[in-house]
Amino acid sequence: MTSQFPSTDDVILGPGDDAAVVAAPDGRTVATTDLLVEGRHFRREWSTARDVGHRAVAQNYADVVAMGARPTGLLIGFAAPADLPLAWAEEFTAGVREECALAGGAVVGGDMVGSDTLTIAVTALGDLEGRAPVRRDGARAGDVVAYTGHLGLSAAGLALLERGVDGPADCLSEHRRPSPPYAAGPEAAVLGATAMLDISDGLVQDLGHICRASGVRVDLESDALRPEPALLEAVRVLGAPAGNAVAAARRLMAVGGEDHALAAVFPPETGLPEHWHAVGVVAEAPRGSEEVPEHPVTLDGDVVERGGWDHFRRE
Amino acid sequence: MTSQFPSTDDVILGPGDDAAVVAAPDGRTVATTDLLVEGRHFRREWSTARDVGHRAVAQNYADVVAMGARPTGLLIGFAAPADLPLAWAEEFTAGVREECALAGGAVVGGDMVGSDTLTIAVTALGDLEGRAPVRRDGARAGDVVAYTGHLGLSAAGLALLERGVDGPADCLSEHRRPSPPYAAGPEAAVLGATAMLDISDGLVQDLGHICRASGVRVDLESDALRPEPALLEAVRVLGAPAGNAVAAARRLMAVGGEDHALAAVFPPETGLPEHWHAVGVVAEAPRGSEEVPEHPVTLDGDVVERGGWDHFRRE
Repeated sequence: MTSQFPSTDDVILGPGDDAAVVAAPDGRTVATTDLLVEGRHFRREWSTARDVGHRAVAQNYADVVAMGARPTGLLIGFAAPADLPLAWAEEFTAGVREECALAGGAVVGGDMVGSDTLTIAVTALGDLEGRAPVRRDGARAGDVVAYTGHLGLSAAGLALLERGVDGPADCLSEHRRPSPPYAAGPEAAVLGATAMLDISDGLVQDLGHICRASGVRVDLESDALRPEPALLEAVRVLGAPAGNAVAAARRLMAVGGEDHALAAVFPPETGLPEHWHAVGVVAEAPRGSEEVPEHPVTLDGDVVERGGWDHFRRE
Repeated sequence: MTSQFPSTDDVILGPGDDAAVVAAPDGRTVATTDLLVEGRHFRREWSTARDVGHRAVAQNYADVVAMGARPTGLLIGFAAPADLPLAWAEEFTAGVREECALAGGAVVGGDMVGSDTLTIAVTALGDLEGRAPVRRDGARAGDVVAYTGHLGLSAAGLALLERGVDGPADCLSEHRRPSPPYAAGPEAAVLGATAMLDISDGLVQDLGHICRASGVRVDLESDALRPEPALLEAVRVLGAPAGNAVAAARRLMAVGGEDHALAAVFPPETGLPEHWHAVGVVAEAPRGSEEVPEHPVTLDGDVVERGGWDHFRRE
């Protein structure tokens, strides 16, 4: 499988030996790993093999860029049942190759084994280019909270698939192949972001990690959550009452996961590029960093309950 | 799970953020990945959880040291059925921790997910300490072939387990917890090894990779394969005819896999430390490097057929 991947300048020794050798120009390597299990993280009836290849790369490299790093290399473990069609593996490989071309890193190693459960293990490496990693614990009261990338589209896409109804292609494709804003991770680091993460569980949920790590709370402004047209259309298809589509879409933007957008916190004086959308502010935790509230992220001052598309179920 | 692992000087940022940051002092990182699937790579009835933890680390760090590198960091993906006893995961973690203490690298990241099939994905990182990686393609005619570590014990242990008979503890434990000679990898690099690899499929089989990559062949001397006492005892228990135990043991040393010993090729003038056992020589491929024979590794001039313990089956 690995022979089908192009190399890059970061690959000092590619697949085929006991191990690969990847450039780590500033003397540090960023590393993260994720498992994708069929039936839990993807379904062969909802996603093509190519989609799964894209997604396996995207969700790992999203974690790399969320540290402010540039993707350099990927290792892929592939455990597959004996009856997996060869074409599935080939299409998966094509998806990996395409997403690597977008993100900029190369496949440097892998392992293929048999298993009753189709499982994909990805480890992604990255280069901090001399900068400090952007962690979760640097947010300070007064900082601005912003995001870039799509929000809510993947959750809407999943809801459409679960209900078996057709809807906006952008939502379905974002669920199948999230499109992390790769370049924005290093960009945020250069801009001086004090904290950053990849949004995999939802904006509110994931900002909670920053709050707990930094000892702060965050208040989001719903007016600043501006739904994309595809998301508005999706919530209408999903049954949001007329006149309530914007509120319903904002709810998905606040709690919907898996778009792999980036959320970052910047000092208030930072001049943010247009594609970074300021959506809230960091505030002191009630009694200092020792006491982060149970729901540290609020929307217009209110606690946001979990559960995204349940809201729209017709059952 | 990751909070239970001690850190080391190589860990710049440990588990808990989007990704870890690991030291790569000379500007390069060695990286390799392996999957272990229950029922294929281990059996819960034959190996304890602690054994599996040891083995998951050992087989990956063996690949790192086989490049001549020093282990620095490990990422572990853990996919488990909902009914996996918590104690199993805890014991697995203890085994990982213990093997990391032996090998010298830290656990820097991981992922835990549900799956019907217990699956462990390990990625290991290493530091070349300024040396060139020892690849598979550097062997030259006249070089000496040597190994260090155990050979044949794991295969004998597996044969004992498969036949449900008791036998030497060293063979059973080597199958359950291979003990790669970690320090010998960087040592071989310093000694000037021209090629090296981790023996996972058997000495003959794996030296074949060096032959094909280097365009050479290798002849092993059976007299140089000196079986350990535990291996001799095991082949007797497995039914090797009296007077034939040494030959049977040498066969397991030649074809038995999974001990994760190291095989390396050195220039003929190299002064080898005692624990490196010279077992053969590198020769030209018949018509130069373009034509490596189908069986490039011979034993006393003869082709060695695959299949280890089958030889001893009583069926």
